[in-house]
Amino acid sequence: MSLHPSDGPLGPGTVALVGAGPGDPELLTRRAARRLAEADLVLYDALIDPAVLDLARSARRVYVGKRAGGHAVSQDFINRLLIRAARRGQRVVRLKGGDPFVFGRGGEEALALANAGIPFEIVPGISSAVAAAELAGIPVTHRSLASGFVVVSGHAEEAYRPILEAIVPESATVVVMMGLGRIAAIADLLLARGWNPLTPAAVLLAAATASSETLTLTLRDLQRGVALADASLPGTVVIGTVVGIRSALVQEESYGARGLSRASGIPRR
Amino acid sequence: MSLHPSDGPLGPGTVALVGAGPGDPELLTRRAARRLAEADLVLYDALIDPAVLDLARSARRVYVGKRAGGHAVSQDFINRLLIRAARRGQRVVRLKGGDPFVFGRGGEEALALANAGIPFEIVPGISSAVAAAELAGIPVTHRSLASGFVVVSGHAEEAYRPILEAIVPESATVVVMMGLGRIAAIADLLLARGWNPLTPAAVLLAAATASSETLTLTLRDLQRGVALADASLPGTVVIGTVVGIRSALVQEESYGARGLSRASGIPRR
Repeated sequence: MSLHPSDGPLGPGTVALVGAGPGDPELLTRRAARRLAEADLVLYDALIDPAVLDLARSARRVYVGKRAGGHAVSQDFINRLLIRAARRGQRVVRLKGGDPFVFGRGGEEALALANAGIPFEIVPGISSAVAAAELAGIPVTHRSLASGFVVVSGHAEEAYRPILEAIVPESATVVVMMGLGRIAAIADLLLARGWNPLTPAAVLLAAATASSETLTLTLRDLQRGVALADASLPGTVVIGTVVGIRSALVQEESYGARGLSRASGIPRR
Repeated sequence: MSLHPSDGPLGPGTVALVGAGPGDPELLTRRAARRLAEADLVLYDALIDPAVLDLARSARRVYVGKRAGGHAVSQDFINRLLIRAARRGQRVVRLKGGDPFVFGRGGEEALALANAGIPFEIVPGISSAVAAAELAGIPVTHRSLASGFVVVSGHAEEAYRPILEAIVPESATVVVMMGLGRIAAIADLLLARGWNPLTPAAVLLAAATASSETLTLTLRDLQRGVALADASLPGTVVIGTVVGIRSALVQEESYGARGLSRASGIPRR
């Protein structure tokens, strides 16, 4: 069988674990938009665009996201909220930034629902793991430069160290999600493993939002520390030769001054 | 600046490199659906659902995908088609399965467009790299099981060998895309590197389509070879302890017999 969602509407007493994508409401999937419109209750995380929430026209919307420095609501409490609402017969959407199964703890919620006998479905979302770089003109894979990529979470050393230590320097593109607070330590680790200090890197802030920002630099620069205007913004770090492609796709100096559209890699004629 | 697409319509003489997602038309993004509706010309690959193409109501639709055993159309020819159509002032959508920058050669097309001075934008799509496993109830990341994942293309040994040899056994979830033809060789390689032969693995055929199929087995089984009913279906292989989560989320024995919805992890009440 498959967890592939049905084409029909969300049933009463059912939970949809839905990925909201990287930020831009237009990067929501059509099924995610539909599930929001069908929901009686939406439990949502931080960094969800208000325009996305507005699609949940007839739902009660409850924020269950993190606060800086800790959880506003424990995972266990969220699981119990989901189960209780479904048992009351509600159509529940659990809305998560990006994709539910990429560092989203969606697996834990799915297990809790399965253990409680609650029917559920999973609606994948666009993950920043690929899209943050992509929207900045950086392909995580590219012929002759990178035939694969590695994605780790930078939120804690025990999460990224075993994997980053386990890969041969420069063998693949490295994507670090949620790692802005540990950029220097991560660069340290890679350089100690023998990565070339001049390996290009990009820091992608608030991708797919109006306040998105891209810094391109080198692994050595990352080690020295990056002064971020707002380190509280969500950020993704990409390390690898593919970062160099951006300069051929994007004419940074002409942004604004020549009325360059945000939509295009080069000025419109 | 950013390659992030504008909220306005696709301009004349502009190319949108659009990800169609893993198959299900409902997993298309809202922007992808909009760009298709706006397009004058759509150049599309294999494995695009007809319902997705039908969204391009006023476009000429040209198939430029691969044939078994070779390319129907060379990459260089596609690049020239894109440039020529844009220069004629057409609104062009280049529609690719999954995400344009995950083994999609989207980077090459973007470079060709930038070199030719053609404005373009990139619309990320849901990649099977995460979604194929996800729709089968397998999270590529999961607390205490996998804090990261590695994605490689299995289409050629020189693409996957350097990366798969470079990672310490069982340090991360491994996702092999387009690797059905080389399953045994890939399993051989991992076992020779010291992976546990009992590491769970899943073969995901035609994810997010009506003919999707999931086989769960072990790395040793993969090495012995898997008899696939239809090896021409697109397939993704996932290797790692996270594969074990599926059995807790999906009740395989009850599929069909009890009228289990494809939408839910467990039978609906």
